[in-house]
Amino acid sequence: MSEYFKIDPWGTSYIKDYNRLMEEFGIKPLTDELISQLPFAHRLIRRKIIFGHRDLERIIISIRSGETYAVMTGIKPSGAFHLGSKLTADEFIYFLMLSPKAFGYYAIADLEAYADNKIPLDESYKIAVDNLADLLALGLDPKRVYVYRQSEEMRVLRLAFIFSRGVTYNTLRAIYGEQRFGLYFSALVQAGDILAPQLPENSGPKATIVPVGADQDPHIRLTRDLAQKYQGEFGFILPSATYHILLRDLTGMEKMSKRNPMGILYLSESLESAKKKVMNAFTGGRATAEEQRRLGGEPEKCVIFRELLSVHFMENDAKLRELYLKCKGGEILCGECKARAWEIISKWLSEHKKKKEEMLDIAVKLLEEHTLA
Amino acid sequence: MSEYFKIDPWGTSYIKDYNRLMEEFGIKPLTDELISQLPFAHRLIRRKIIFGHRDLERIIISIRSGETYAVMTGIKPSGAFHLGSKLTADEFIYFLMLSPKAFGYYAIADLEAYADNKIPLDESYKIAVDNLADLLALGLDPKRVYVYRQSEEMRVLRLAFIFSRGVTYNTLRAIYGEQRFGLYFSALVQAGDILAPQLPENSGPKATIVPVGADQDPHIRLTRDLAQKYQGEFGFILPSATYHILLRDLTGMEKMSKRNPMGILYLSESLESAKKKVMNAFTGGRATAEEQRRLGGEPEKCVIFRELLSVHFMENDAKLRELYLKCKGGEILCGECKARAWEIISKWLSEHKKKKEEMLDIAVKLLEEHTLA
Repeated sequence: MSEYFKIDPWGTSYIKDYNRLMEEFGIKPLTDELISQLPFAHRLIRRKIIFGHRDLERIIISIRSGETYAVMTGIKPSGAFHLGSKLTADEFIYFLMLSPKAFGYYAIADLEAYADNKIPLDESYKIAVDNLADLLALGLDPKRVYVYRQSEEMRVLRLAFIFSRGVTYNTLRAIYGEQRFGLYFSALVQAGDILAPQLPENSGPKATIVPVGADQDPHIRLTRDLAQKYQGEFGFILPSATYHILLRDLTGMEKMSKRNPMGILYLSESLESAKKKVMNAFTGGRATAEEQRRLGGEPEKCVIFRELLSVHFMENDAKLRELYLKCKGGEILCGECKARAWEIISKWLSEHKKKKEEMLDIAVKLLEEHTLA
Repeated sequence: MSEYFKIDPWGTSYIKDYNRLMEEFGIKPLTDELISQLPFAHRLIRRKIIFGHRDLERIIISIRSGETYAVMTGIKPSGAFHLGSKLTADEFIYFLMLSPKAFGYYAIADLEAYADNKIPLDESYKIAVDNLADLLALGLDPKRVYVYRQSEEMRVLRLAFIFSRGVTYNTLRAIYGEQRFGLYFSALVQAGDILAPQLPENSGPKATIVPVGADQDPHIRLTRDLAQKYQGEFGFILPSATYHILLRDLTGMEKMSKRNPMGILYLSESLESAKKKVMNAFTGGRATAEEQRRLGGEPEKCVIFRELLSVHFMENDAKLRELYLKCKGGEILCGECKARAWEIISKWLSEHKKKKEEMLDIAVKLLEEHTLA
């Protein structure tokens, strides 16, 4: 069995060979030509952190022709928003900003939080409100999104039920490998999440973009297979997707885990705690200052440079490039660089917290609204 | 693999060896002693058409102590009520009549009708109204039942989702054999149907009786396993069940099938059509009238005697016994017997139709109500 079969949306696998992934499964590279057709390119796209896509062309056509399209994502409300949640949230908001005709669907996977993490629904409701407040503070327009809890959204579970008749155990095993039964069930619910925006109640078939991490491609493949299979019945348009590379935690570990709290930066944690984490982050520094001045640092290995500044906190490409060159040239050492990074990050965190505070009421309303597009 | 592993709730298998079924899977015989503890015995029980049970003692305790218990059943709204539907309906109503504290839960499996028979939800809604009118005409008290459509009942699908985390593919395969994925999914939904009456919203854990055909035991076993597994979380009391023998169609076929329309008697079909079916029913008659007078008939093989009169249309035990003896003694031949049976059946059908007509409005209300116990 080849290496990339290991990709597992529930696991902690780390995919390094994106080219092979693209060749094997038909994810296409996000070319400069395609990027040039977007109204504007997000830093994640400019920096090729989003490296691949399926059928992004369809979304570009929708944008250019002023047609409605759906942007779909979600969250498992099992804890506070962290940098990983922010990454997908940034992508979600970006695809909404590309056209006034885009409409967002945001799934709160509270049944999964219950089944996997034993979080009761009233508890995950509170977490969801908190998560939504973060999402709004990141720039989501509450008028352009339908937020729903899995536990309340009959249409999605109905689709999952219908889709369950359209797949065999062997198909699911081929896509996901041998898994607990419930994970197959979840996969069908996620297919329901992604295709529900195309139901008649949501004004019918439309292009849909789902921004995901590379490890989530099995879900996209299953969903596209099902969209094909039920095309006659529902008229589904195969959903489009973009793929971002998998990122490390602050300590440089490839596997994110709550058991390694120093690795995860929460958007709402205290500045004191956040500072400790940033200052202890894994860098591309050399063994000694002398060596680093002589050989230069290794920014491509550095969490401060990649996971923090490139992905999240340094919007300006020229400044990022300047930092890269200075590091490579041994002109800036890790201590100074971390201090600068912390200045940017702490400012961002402080502002975010303020915005989030103002968003809590809207978050509650958004969850209670439960309206349709 | 032993013979009785073949029992398949979705198939058309016919179980003859009930003793082996009971030994293998722990279904207990419905003893005279147990029957004597019931407030009154239904003809199906007196005649051992209901031959076995699981934990019926628990229901008897509830009846005697005046405790609330649930009676659970359902229907797939894919066609009109026929004698098979009536059998389960009679059992459902009987268990409700045993105690004023019993409350009924009736599931309309419209998602299954959609997934299996391509019946759109608005279409199956109409069928469900018709089915419910039959059920009410059979004697169901509308104030003592919660009727719900699968497609609208979030609580049941939520449970199915949760249960999916509690089973493996291997467990499901051991119980059901190799099946399409969707049938496993349905099995979990049915477990949700059976255990939903014990949710906090339905006033919590309680004894539940599910009257089923012997071929449905896999569902009961799975549900009891899940009730055990999630006992800590939900406090479930293992559901009780009664089992009736599997009956033949009017033509004597062990496999009921809509492709054999002469085999199925619908409660609302025209008297003309019904008469044709009854008159053509499979009997225990001999090759010639002479032979039958000499040897006597074989009522135990006769659909008129067993499936029609014993199971459904002759309430009086003494009369049934008299008919049995006359048939065995060659004193009554099939022609005369069929004519008498038709007299009873046609009268019943005419009365039922009248009652049903009056129940249609209540059926609509019951479906729209969607209230809780």
